[in-house]
Amino acid sequence: MSDYAGRISRLQEAMRAQGAVWAVMAPSDSMRYLAGWVAGGHERLIALFVPATGEPVFVVPAMNAQQAKTNPAGIARVVGWNDDSGWQASVQPILQAWSGSRSGGEALIDDELMSVHLLGLQTLFPRLTYVPAGETMARLREIKTPEELAALERAAAMIDALYEEALGTLAEGMTEIEFAEILLDRMKREGTAPSFPPLICFGANGAMPHHHTGNTPLRRGDVVVIDIGCISDHYASDITRTVAFGEPRDPEAARVYEIVSQAHHAAREAARPGVSGEEVDAAARRVITEAGFGPQFIHRTGHGIGLSTHEPPYIVGGNKAPLQPGMCFSVEPGIYLPDRFGIRIENIVTVTADGSRSLNAEAPRQLRVV
Amino acid sequence: MSDYAGRISRLQEAMRAQGAVWAVMAPSDSMRYLAGWVAGGHERLIALFVPATGEPVFVVPAMNAQQAKTNPAGIARVVGWNDDSGWQASVQPILQAWSGSRSGGEALIDDELMSVHLLGLQTLFPRLTYVPAGETMARLREIKTPEELAALERAAAMIDALYEEALGTLAEGMTEIEFAEILLDRMKREGTAPSFPPLICFGANGAMPHHHTGNTPLRRGDVVVIDIGCISDHYASDITRTVAFGEPRDPEAARVYEIVSQAHHAAREAARPGVSGEEVDAAARRVITEAGFGPQFIHRTGHGIGLSTHEPPYIVGGNKAPLQPGMCFSVEPGIYLPDRFGIRIENIVTVTADGSRSLNAEAPRQLRVV
Repeated sequence: MSDYAGRISRLQEAMRAQGAVWAVMAPSDSMRYLAGWVAGGHERLIALFVPATGEPVFVVPAMNAQQAKTNPAGIARVVGWNDDSGWQASVQPILQAWSGSRSGGEALIDDELMSVHLLGLQTLFPRLTYVPAGETMARLREIKTPEELAALERAAAMIDALYEEALGTLAEGMTEIEFAEILLDRMKREGTAPSFPPLICFGANGAMPHHHTGNTPLRRGDVVVIDIGCISDHYASDITRTVAFGEPRDPEAARVYEIVSQAHHAAREAARPGVSGEEVDAAARRVITEAGFGPQFIHRTGHGIGLSTHEPPYIVGGNKAPLQPGMCFSVEPGIYLPDRFGIRIENIVTVTADGSRSLNAEAPRQLRVV
Repeated sequence: MSDYAGRISRLQEAMRAQGAVWAVMAPSDSMRYLAGWVAGGHERLIALFVPATGEPVFVVPAMNAQQAKTNPAGIARVVGWNDDSGWQASVQPILQAWSGSRSGGEALIDDELMSVHLLGLQTLFPRLTYVPAGETMARLREIKTPEELAALERAAAMIDALYEEALGTLAEGMTEIEFAEILLDRMKREGTAPSFPPLICFGANGAMPHHHTGNTPLRRGDVVVIDIGCISDHYASDITRTVAFGEPRDPEAARVYEIVSQAHHAAREAARPGVSGEEVDAAARRVITEAGFGPQFIHRTGHGIGLSTHEPPYIVGGNKAPLQPGMCFSVEPGIYLPDRFGIRIENIVTVTADGSRSLNAEAPRQLRVV
């Protein structure tokens, strides 16, 4: 049983410290974190309003009210609004009561709230200062409890096993989409779901880190990039493995793989409490730059993971915040050689008392030929 | 070939008429409508900025820049930003150039833009008035071209055929999820995808219009509500059919079905150019209210459909805007009797020169027993 009441009271404590009058969560992983319940409302407002002091309130379309009342956090006040009257009439008195006679103060806005709803709130209460809730929520969410860590480890073990099993099905002529379908079918059979659409890159497609899994057929000698994840109890996994299908066509593939592997481990060795995300990024980047491939490492080294596949902390230049025990993030350096191939190796790690520990099985140090 | 240039210039014309300096589209159906290209950026800004006069600009993470340049609208200016420096540094000079010496004016914000990005823009340009782009985009998008109508008709014909085929697989003891999986498998086989997750309600679950398709098994005598849709060339379909699995257990089911059917047709007969969405809603509601079930018709009569499954025009009390030829929307009255059953009948219709026309095959006027 998650400690929803504790999460809400820690948010309220942070809000009081920064002078926030209320916060609003959209249907997002932050809503799930605080209330254990989420439903998508599309153009209809579904929101969790949290005052600096007192009880939170769900505001949902009338037809979602019964469901919202089942929220595991036990938030009892659920206000349903109707299509005819719109949500503003329901929200106005709630927020008015919380603001009291104050004309100023901050309102914390879930990063993912739709702009049309934020603009509606700004029209209702034009004198508040509206600020993103992202930083505040990140401070709460980025340090995982043992229960959360256990869910991340289950998700990690599942994707490791699915990867190993699926690898044996790679066959000449198979398309990227076909291999992705095999992975998706196995996820469904295991009772899980993808945390993001499988990213499968055959041959030169691997040189595009955000390639769209497509109809390219697998050819002998291709370098294959497999970036996949699944979920356990709403917590995500995310790994990338790079293998060669038969002896690699490109004579440089094996050497580039070893550089990326070294960069991956350099980052992990750098990760410990007190070190910043920027320093971890730099540790990976240094290895790749010294090997002459700096310009071919075209993205950050990693991202936090939890209820969201991408969440703080980001392992990127500019992130000077010190890592803390319980943080979990990806370490995924890569080298991308256009029209030739790409190599990326990604594990999820958690920061321990004195270093870091991988949640995933280790990728080979040398390019695996399958 | 869609007329993207025409769409952008019609938006710009509307912007100039309302005093908007620029507009920004998030990864959304509005971005697809204007540019024919969308990629999800999650926390990373992917946006299409459109000035009141001149060429639009895509602002995307550097690693999406190549893909963004393939946009079918031929928008040539694509600015890539890096994780290290953030998007604001790239956006500031673009918007500064468009605002010129003006200190005021409107900025139109895609309804779906994430609040964290809107708050970033408001910080960069605090003196602009930020307004939702929804109304302006609705005026463009809600009247379909013949090409768009053809895509909606293809999607409608596909879902009609899938429904008829799948109906024969209903079997005693099958769960809602199992029936949904059959539908999803058949969609995949036909090369289409769901426009929303199939909503399958067996028995009393049908009394909840937003029930979650679950593990309830089908029993003889159940009333079954099937609300499904698929896509063709990104355009959506959406139908609801209600049938009885064997002779209905509830003696009132057949009579309530006929009332809903009458309400459905009353709304369609009311729909014509110049009549408002509110009047169409009232036509359906009148039939149901006169039959004594007014309080059991707990949602609006319909929603527009196009690239989005739900989009303007909404067929709801308060919508006084006159319908125009080329508009397409659902007509889906329903009656919901808690703990007993629900009945809903939904077709998509388009407004013609002098009335309306269904894109879907007709549902039976009497409750079908399968």
